[in-house]
Amino acid sequence: MQVLFVHCHPEPTSFNAALTSIGVEVFEERGDRVEISDLYAESFDPVEKPDHYIRRSDTTVFSPLAEQRHAYRENTLPADVRREIARLERADLVVFQFPIWWHSAPAMLKGWMDRVFVSGGLYSSTMRYDTGYFRGRRALCSATTGAPEAAFEPGGRAGEIDKILWSTQYSLYYMGFDILPPFVSYGVQGHGFSYASDDGFARLMEETKSAWRSRLVGIDADRPLRFPGWEDWDEVGRLRPKAETSGRS
Amino acid sequence: MQVLFVHCHPEPTSFNAALTSIGVEVFEERGDRVEISDLYAESFDPVEKPDHYIRRSDTTVFSPLAEQRHAYRENTLPADVRREIARLERADLVVFQFPIWWHSAPAMLKGWMDRVFVSGGLYSSTMRYDTGYFRGRRALCSATTGAPEAAFEPGGRAGEIDKILWSTQYSLYYMGFDILPPFVSYGVQGHGFSYASDDGFARLMEETKSAWRSRLVGIDADRPLRFPGWEDWDEVGRLRPKAETSGRS
Repeated sequence: MQVLFVHCHPEPTSFNAALTSIGVEVFEERGDRVEISDLYAESFDPVEKPDHYIRRSDTTVFSPLAEQRHAYRENTLPADVRREIARLERADLVVFQFPIWWHSAPAMLKGWMDRVFVSGGLYSSTMRYDTGYFRGRRALCSATTGAPEAAFEPGGRAGEIDKILWSTQYSLYYMGFDILPPFVSYGVQGHGFSYASDDGFARLMEETKSAWRSRLVGIDADRPLRFPGWEDWDEVGRLRPKAETSGRS
Repeated sequence: MQVLFVHCHPEPTSFNAALTSIGVEVFEERGDRVEISDLYAESFDPVEKPDHYIRRSDTTVFSPLAEQRHAYRENTLPADVRREIARLERADLVVFQFPIWWHSAPAMLKGWMDRVFVSGGLYSSTMRYDTGYFRGRRALCSATTGAPEAAFEPGGRAGEIDKILWSTQYSLYYMGFDILPPFVSYGVQGHGFSYASDDGFARLMEETKSAWRSRLVGIDADRPLRFPGWEDWDEVGRLRPKAETSGRS
């Protein structure tokens, strides 16, 4: 298969970079084809703004969605957005590697979604969720946290990990991806600052790398998370009563 | 009092811009002092990266948190970050005005948090949550959505509004703010695209503006949302059993 890593970290020697390297290695050993979108290294611009649209549908008022639809139709999408779409279209599996900053993905990755998931091209009112553009493809979030795991339990100090990853994962589901259970590396601190002793920290990081390798080696057997889909919603988007008792969440 | 609007929308004639204008008007009528951080108009750079740090603590490895701490200590924080901190320090109430893009805030606002909430300066391991830097100040999120309200109910197609706003609001709570209940304007579509008829849409927008004005006029009586705090967590950040039955959420 073909795998795309969307890698989001400013430091090439970071733990996030190590996890992406391990991932590339695992898939190349299997004989899979691998591509990397290294957002920081490629200086991706995460800000959706008028400057990206050279031929506006309306030069007096900037509506991001209207300009996305227009640029897609006219084949004038920005070059970086076209490059990212082409990478996504080649991928059977997309792995997102990023640190948790302020209880969600860094702005760099958030803005990649703001710009690359193009209205009228990669989604429409009928082409989304389980009828989304990328249906049949899989996505996996691999995130690192500074705080240790206990703080991410329900009511915990760092916030529930499901809430932290929700907006990223639900947006990927919106695009049609099957969302594999996330891989979370807890207690990863920046250079010169960690909760654990140096020895304990080094051991935790080695264990985490090993767990990541094992997870990816067995990825074909992973079962995706379940989300409600078109059959579960009424025409205005409310959950139908039937679905409430079907065990979906 | 002093009010800061952190305004995040690329189009000066947008509905978001109209809501910020109404807000400024309401507070100025009351005799309050108002400032605006207009992130797009000021071309704020939302990407946390090495270029922002002119005197690195470590030029070989870029650790965002280590550089933030160092720059704060050495008084070499980037000028735009210092400006934003000064605005926050003057404010008794901070209103965040933004559209929901991909189930969360736009990258521009997310990155404002990534850069402005400086480690070692505006928070530390003991100065956060209910002992945070901005304790005693209030924050309010005013967000617009494309989809209509029904789709944001639990299990609804657009995702639960509490999940959508959670990472933004919890990050503000981390900084010590009292978080007022959010104001959500549903069904706000971009230029030339709306769910409702033109008449219905115009009426909905007028009603929303009027509700926003009323909400702000009465804001002194608003009661903040409740989050767990230091008393509720044990030393590793887990919720203590006592707190689970105290009705906090």
